[in-house]
Amino acid sequence: MPNPDRNRRLLLRRRPTGLPVATNFELVVQAVPEPVEGSVLIRNHYCSLDPAIRGWLEDAPSYIAPIAINDPVRAIAVGQVVASRHPDFKPDDWVFGMTALEDYTVAVPDGFLRRIDPSRAPLTNYLSALGAVGVTAYFGVTEICRPQPGETLLVTGAAGAVGSLVGQIAKIKGCRVVGIAGGPAKCARLVERYGFDTAIDYKNQSTTELSAALGRAAPEGLDIVFESVGGVVLDTALMHLKRHARVALCGLISEYNSTTGPVGARNLWQLIVKSARIEGFFTGDFLPRFAEAQAAMSAWLAEGRLKVDEHVDQGLENAVPAFLRLFAGTNTGKLMLKIA
Amino acid sequence: MPNPDRNRRLLLRRRPTGLPVATNFELVVQAVPEPVEGSVLIRNHYCSLDPAIRGWLEDAPSYIAPIAINDPVRAIAVGQVVASRHPDFKPDDWVFGMTALEDYTVAVPDGFLRRIDPSRAPLTNYLSALGAVGVTAYFGVTEICRPQPGETLLVTGAAGAVGSLVGQIAKIKGCRVVGIAGGPAKCARLVERYGFDTAIDYKNQSTTELSAALGRAAPEGLDIVFESVGGVVLDTALMHLKRHARVALCGLISEYNSTTGPVGARNLWQLIVKSARIEGFFTGDFLPRFAEAQAAMSAWLAEGRLKVDEHVDQGLENAVPAFLRLFAGTNTGKLMLKIA
Repeated sequence: MPNPDRNRRLLLRRRPTGLPVATNFELVVQAVPEPVEGSVLIRNHYCSLDPAIRGWLEDAPSYIAPIAINDPVRAIAVGQVVASRHPDFKPDDWVFGMTALEDYTVAVPDGFLRRIDPSRAPLTNYLSALGAVGVTAYFGVTEICRPQPGETLLVTGAAGAVGSLVGQIAKIKGCRVVGIAGGPAKCARLVERYGFDTAIDYKNQSTTELSAALGRAAPEGLDIVFESVGGVVLDTALMHLKRHARVALCGLISEYNSTTGPVGARNLWQLIVKSARIEGFFTGDFLPRFAEAQAAMSAWLAEGRLKVDEHVDQGLENAVPAFLRLFAGTNTGKLMLKIA
Repeated sequence: MPNPDRNRRLLLRRRPTGLPVATNFELVVQAVPEPVEGSVLIRNHYCSLDPAIRGWLEDAPSYIAPIAINDPVRAIAVGQVVASRHPDFKPDDWVFGMTALEDYTVAVPDGFLRRIDPSRAPLTNYLSALGAVGVTAYFGVTEICRPQPGETLLVTGAAGAVGSLVGQIAKIKGCRVVGIAGGPAKCARLVERYGFDTAIDYKNQSTTELSAALGRAAPEGLDIVFESVGGVVLDTALMHLKRHARVALCGLISEYNSTTGPVGARNLWQLIVKSARIEGFFTGDFLPRFAEAQAAMSAWLAEGRLKVDEHVDQGLENAVPAFLRLFAGTNTGKLMLKIA
């Protein structure tokens, strides 16, 4: 149990090569810090475990700085203000923001850190449909994919936290939705729970079989691909694009633990012959419009048009095995860690 | 010399694996065909030798059907109508269109085939600045890259027929232009003849050195990349993108003769961290606006703002070694074959 006198912190000790292992990290106990002027001290309750964290462990140029060696592992979290030296926050406020896998974080409000209303939705929803995941799915579909009714949209990583929302939003927008996921249980959930039109199990299939399955699922080709996987899955999707197709590039989870370098997109020439495009996006670009996405997602949740699943593991001491679920595909729904 | 009774034709006999060789083709003599109703018989004078032809030799899905085995090798050409059974064309009209590496072609007017005015510009210009190459460069810059004054644009394959025009058009549009080409002579020409701001010689450089050179040439990064090369050059460019950069994908010449499969873009993750996009395009999409591009290019040529170089090889019997110049980089300017 948490102790108000001590701060358990998961530090990055060594950068991983390939799949992270326990010895890349160390759980230490340090003193609870004091907030400095302009900052707030937050007690983290739920920490979001996202594929993006894997990227921050690398010493490589990205949209934010890498996590420094011996710093705590950065994570989006929901927590409660314990002490504040910032005029916009007061003790007991519930907040959402970028903190870390630790009991207590001193955070400087930055536009991302914001108050949340725990009476409006369960706290965990602020890490799923009403959090960064939901905003990524919402703006990924509405601003990057820009679907028209009747278009066919493929979601890869479709049973994942973002993918399952993307498919449901695309259905609301009138698309025919095909999902690719790993294993029959996930595929069944895509159709039965999330309302996808059809699902393809990429496991135990050769590239040729995967391509044939995609051809059957979308015989006229793909208008839109929402891509979070990369590698063979992306290359196969590229071979099924319609003219003027667009690929929204959200992630490349199949590559994050590669020890042989990135694969990327080998069938890039299809972009030329189909006059198609791949567009990367970063949810942070939509920060000023966060409330717009939350309002839409809240309404769809209230109307029962959006199903959200959350997978909550327990305890900071389980942070590493919990995080690794993302790469083994053993989480069911948005993965998070309850630490208070 | 051509003989009005015979039609020399370069036929595709076997699809190449890797770099094409002489035995993939055969130069045969056949009877001159008669135009059927709705078609015209064209005497080809200049045939355009383009990297795209390499794509048409493959049995793979593309924007047009592959060249069939035992069919003549398709090429864009300038020629003269010999006989017409189409109301819009009459004998002696000079035309531009898709024909083949052969003395005579029966062509069905298709929107691409059009009359040209030989008094307005040299015939060869209709295969360079006023032809498909010029239209590709013009719409590639104006519609896909959409440069703003002061932006930095990188052209790869910069000494090529399209690349040299792209850089000059981008300069006219107010960009800072960096070119990548092979060898000191080509690099000197980029700066001295075409007015590029700076040029990088990719030959005899490691990937690290190439990246360092690009960093010096564009210390604040790249707003735009006009890409015709692919492979290491594209991957290096991706590491230097600014936020919201766009990559216009025109070709991937470094891959066309690969025997180990396509490379594509390995640093695709940079699209995510930079909210950037890669957009393929096909000049055929701009067919209805061909005249608009020709008018702009003609005006810039007349004002001396655009320098055009043409490399004319002679004779159908030299078609294969001439075509291979594109992959050895031994042509200087737009490559074409004079066959009449």
